[in-house]
Amino acid sequence: MLVGADPFFPDPCIPDHIIEATKKALDGGHTHYALDNSYAVPPLKETLVKKLKVFNHLDVDPENELIVVPSSAFGLYAGIRICVRPNMGDEVLNIDPGFAENFNDVVQIGATSVSVPVYPEDGFQIRREELEKAVTPNTRCLVLTHPNNPTSTVYKREVLEDVAAFLEDHDLMVVVDQSFERNIYDNREYITFATLKGMKERTISVFGTSKDLGLTGFRVAYMVAPKQIIDILKIATFNYVGPTNTFAQYGVAAGYQDPSYVDEWMKVFNYRRQYGYNLLKQIPGVKCQLPEGGYFFWVDIRALGTSTEVRDFLIKDANVGVSPGNWFGSHGEGYLRIMFSTMRDTAKYEEAMQRIHQSLMKLAELKGVAGK
Amino acid sequence: MLVGADPFFPDPCIPDHIIEATKKALDGGHTHYALDNSYAVPPLKETLVKKLKVFNHLDVDPENELIVVPSSAFGLYAGIRICVRPNMGDEVLNIDPGFAENFNDVVQIGATSVSVPVYPEDGFQIRREELEKAVTPNTRCLVLTHPNNPTSTVYKREVLEDVAAFLEDHDLMVVVDQSFERNIYDNREYITFATLKGMKERTISVFGTSKDLGLTGFRVAYMVAPKQIIDILKIATFNYVGPTNTFAQYGVAAGYQDPSYVDEWMKVFNYRRQYGYNLLKQIPGVKCQLPEGGYFFWVDIRALGTSTEVRDFLIKDANVGVSPGNWFGSHGEGYLRIMFSTMRDTAKYEEAMQRIHQSLMKLAELKGVAGK
Repeated sequence: MLVGADPFFPDPCIPDHIIEATKKALDGGHTHYALDNSYAVPPLKETLVKKLKVFNHLDVDPENELIVVPSSAFGLYAGIRICVRPNMGDEVLNIDPGFAENFNDVVQIGATSVSVPVYPEDGFQIRREELEKAVTPNTRCLVLTHPNNPTSTVYKREVLEDVAAFLEDHDLMVVVDQSFERNIYDNREYITFATLKGMKERTISVFGTSKDLGLTGFRVAYMVAPKQIIDILKIATFNYVGPTNTFAQYGVAAGYQDPSYVDEWMKVFNYRRQYGYNLLKQIPGVKCQLPEGGYFFWVDIRALGTSTEVRDFLIKDANVGVSPGNWFGSHGEGYLRIMFSTMRDTAKYEEAMQRIHQSLMKLAELKGVAGK
Repeated sequence: MLVGADPFFPDPCIPDHIIEATKKALDGGHTHYALDNSYAVPPLKETLVKKLKVFNHLDVDPENELIVVPSSAFGLYAGIRICVRPNMGDEVLNIDPGFAENFNDVVQIGATSVSVPVYPEDGFQIRREELEKAVTPNTRCLVLTHPNNPTSTVYKREVLEDVAAFLEDHDLMVVVDQSFERNIYDNREYITFATLKGMKERTISVFGTSKDLGLTGFRVAYMVAPKQIIDILKIATFNYVGPTNTFAQYGVAAGYQDPSYVDEWMKVFNYRRQYGYNLLKQIPGVKCQLPEGGYFFWVDIRALGTSTEVRDFLIKDANVGVSPGNWFGSHGEGYLRIMFSTMRDTAKYEEAMQRIHQSLMKLAELKGVAGK
């Protein structure tokens, strides 16, 4: 069975250099609070500055614009929290379909999540007119998952420039989740939002290592934001959750120093992407675009039933679990998200996809959907 | 310089069995998300059930009444959050002087912190009449740090029974921070609040490992609460911060399986406690009780100046940093908190305490406070 939102390293296969660096940190006594200015151990701080420069084209002052936190989940929560006041009528714009936790965070904080719909005919890119329709005087910020989860969309430069102009016109902040920034296919250009003209001051960037480096059990993430935001985040992080595991940070530093293993995994994901896509597109009534980023298919099954109905059917008929699209916002109804990262064993993945294919073919026939 | 709120293991001295268990977990591939039902890896779950039974006399169903979280800071925040609604006029009772973060948490959540003063003439035990004075129809819960930080008070059975009766009479929840439960002197009885009659249903117990086992950089804590609370906490934890570092949990499990090293450290702390107490009580105008738990002195310096004045004087004159009492609530003014855990080197600690002693003697003379 495919599990909903799993890591890409479920098995004992973290690269040796990461394990060794973590063990060395344990042997070296790096086992106490990491309460340095950016809550980062020195080698991680140094490595992140380089990574942000080389990979993201972002110049970051590590003492004032960077903070290490225990997860991107926390980073997103804290980033949104800092933009709004609880129960004061503040609104947050969420791309819909979008990452489920972002909708929850807004509600938990006591603000209102306002959907900005994106459409399959645009490849789920953002329309400026939809942003303009959603904004009100109560809007405080936009949340952007880039690439988007669940649609896999890698936003184009002109689209992001439109978003930037919109933020400037309405004087809004943006919280950008870059969890899947390293999982981009077909040599697409990936743009770090904060590098756009005038956007560094408006952007709270959240970076994880669970997707980026596959280090799901390490619990290390980091954020880049303007100094006045980081200053508040330091206090909030200390109060809400405290510093991040110390020796795990050494492992993450080693991961960023040599992340070539991720390229190897991306070859596997790319193969699986093509394999699953070829199967899904054969099914009458099912629509799916080739994923642009991340490692999930966003599958339009409206012709076959609701998200929940088809999810339940796949559990019973194919013994495979997938995520119903309505988890990802009101505009996710009629879709399924199918992960292709959850099993290290590609043969098992292929078998699961074959079972999905077979079951959905059967369902299409039951529903009388015409063949392609 | 003594640092404010440091661990008791600032140096490379975590016991070998803990380091080895953590390394073994890394070698064994225990590096992925720990998303089991209680967010605990199996050996930690099993160990915690035993520890809670033997140490706390608490029977816990690990699937329904336990959750592992990345820090007691998070546990306290989440525990308080679950009891109140943001910006709806809800009130939280905080013992004052008390742990600074608890006051902040309440404000951050959008509730009002109401102080329950405790008095030196009672050894800072809680008076039922003060609870009754502070409670209103808007009160949702009480926060208890036990032993109290900064006063070091270990609450007596009859006092806790009074608190329990109060909670029952007013139908309130309690969030209990047991961070220092293993740091008790003079064979005092330590009572886990949830074991009192009728209190398991009303108690959210928060346990850390930074103070309890000295594992500050591991970032592993846990909570015990009724099933309906844990059910919400599981969702909230997933959303706010996600699971806890996986391999660190194996280290913590080993720590609880053999925590005898803590007893060794308690002997050191006990020596330091007596050493510092003997120096402090000689100073004219300074009052201090022998700490009952934790590892800090709560020093009445009202005769010498305000908390901030005396703190600043000690920085300049003795080159030693201590915490001003007004950090710990409005009733902390006129006090200092002095840690005796911050240095592994007892000789260095003694030197710092001698410098504090010397400086405060000088200050007493400057202020014309009569000798003892």
